[in-house]
Amino acid sequence: MKLIRFGAIGNEKPGVQLEDGTRLDVSAFGQDYDEHFFGGDGLEQLKEWLDSHAEACPRVDTSIRLGAPLCRPSKIICIGLNYAEHAQEAGMDIPKEPVLFMKATSAMVGPYDEVVIPKGSTKTDWEVELAIVIGKKASYVSKEDALQHVAGYVLHNDYSEREYQIERSGQWVKGKSCDTFAPLGPFIATPDELEDPHNLNLWLKVNGEMLQNSNTSDFVFDIPTSISYISRFMTLLPGDIISTGTPFGVGLGFDPPRYLKPGDVVELGIDGLGTSRQVARAYT
Amino acid sequence: MKLIRFGAIGNEKPGVQLEDGTRLDVSAFGQDYDEHFFGGDGLEQLKEWLDSHAEACPRVDTSIRLGAPLCRPSKIICIGLNYAEHAQEAGMDIPKEPVLFMKATSAMVGPYDEVVIPKGSTKTDWEVELAIVIGKKASYVSKEDALQHVAGYVLHNDYSEREYQIERSGQWVKGKSCDTFAPLGPFIATPDELEDPHNLNLWLKVNGEMLQNSNTSDFVFDIPTSISYISRFMTLLPGDIISTGTPFGVGLGFDPPRYLKPGDVVELGIDGLGTSRQVARAYT
Repeated sequence: MKLIRFGAIGNEKPGVQLEDGTRLDVSAFGQDYDEHFFGGDGLEQLKEWLDSHAEACPRVDTSIRLGAPLCRPSKIICIGLNYAEHAQEAGMDIPKEPVLFMKATSAMVGPYDEVVIPKGSTKTDWEVELAIVIGKKASYVSKEDALQHVAGYVLHNDYSEREYQIERSGQWVKGKSCDTFAPLGPFIATPDELEDPHNLNLWLKVNGEMLQNSNTSDFVFDIPTSISYISRFMTLLPGDIISTGTPFGVGLGFDPPRYLKPGDVVELGIDGLGTSRQVARAYT
Repeated sequence: MKLIRFGAIGNEKPGVQLEDGTRLDVSAFGQDYDEHFFGGDGLEQLKEWLDSHAEACPRVDTSIRLGAPLCRPSKIICIGLNYAEHAQEAGMDIPKEPVLFMKATSAMVGPYDEVVIPKGSTKTDWEVELAIVIGKKASYVSKEDALQHVAGYVLHNDYSEREYQIERSGQWVKGKSCDTFAPLGPFIATPDELEDPHNLNLWLKVNGEMLQNSNTSDFVFDIPTSISYISRFMTLLPGDIISTGTPFGVGLGFDPPRYLKPGDVVELGIDGLGTSRQVARAYT
């Protein structure tokens, strides 16, 4: 199943996207994609409900805006330096255990919304990432059980302001949390939709030029390891997002570095998780 | 006004605490202390409502558990090293600009709940802090306007696992986010309740021994500066918590360091914001 949310900012409604791309408005199902939905048996209920109600669901026109495909969760936790070659371009060692940082959930936007370059920023950078959506609550889960806590996967662009992140008295959260810095979607794919989340191509282009192009098989820490590890330090709640890190090819890694300017077009995608596109604009 | 929430974990109801300590159940008011409440005119409405309904409100017995005095907000953002003498004991320089880090909101508990020492942890530490509760949404606010975005103040113990925070591949969030690591309360005091938030004694005892004892007049960055600064990097939403840092006297600063063991009793307080108390127990 592919979950979407659509409509104006702040008034999104839940929907699903069918195999042929048709989008259905499932508001009549009566649940939005939130902690309660993912933590209970929302996914199963929705699937059953669709068996008898899909025909009657209103179609969502492709001209309608897509929002992030879930309600604001309790947290977005990101894994840093999780591809060996990216750690190298960032001038850092491959970590011995996962590097974790947070991104404010207020940064979430839809997959085709604009990315806003913060006031005075000169170092806004891109990071295509595979993000995990947590299903069942996870605390001290083993690697073996970890995948049972996954509700789905979603494409994420972990926008990062490198000056804020690295040059402003430490702690990366400062460069990760600006409004619009977390475009998510177009959809959440439930695990059955992906053959192998550890073998997905992911790529990102700026103004048509391919800058990131890698595969999740290059993870330093795989998905079960990451979930199990994080769950030792905090409880993952249903709907929480884990973003699994970005591969080689971010702006910081070029010599000289390349950062976004107003008007730049960022396109990205992951096998089986669709594509997204953000146009950069200056803060006004 | 002093806002409280009371009842069993996960089923807390809103209340208020009167000057004489009487606790009123204000469930009948119809709003809990969440983003909608703080962002709208919930505080004013509640005050008005109490004028005509306080007499009829059920009294809450002092034997009833207090929860954190607000619903889970979108984020808890903390300021590091915001008292000069504490930066010194932590072996770090006084920062040139505020150091920010996040704490998972899943760590929130009530002021008298137990603090759980994580599995295998040997370095669980305490940090008494003045926390700010955001009222109106704040993005790029000036220092001059910053206090208009404050809904109230609350006592916070920013529990920290120092090994997780410092010795486990960087980024402090890992040592700040364990369950029970954010006891908040007993109550949120609205700004009119405090004469001057920049002149409050704050203290913390472990097993009756005074270990932290300072005053918010020692802040490196004052409250308007902190709010204005954070709002340049992320949007603060109504109900969001800013914890303003801890003074000298944490366990890490002793030689040898002192950390919590099961059975230890932690008591803390801030002028005008009451006291809280947590007994440490091992994870089971």
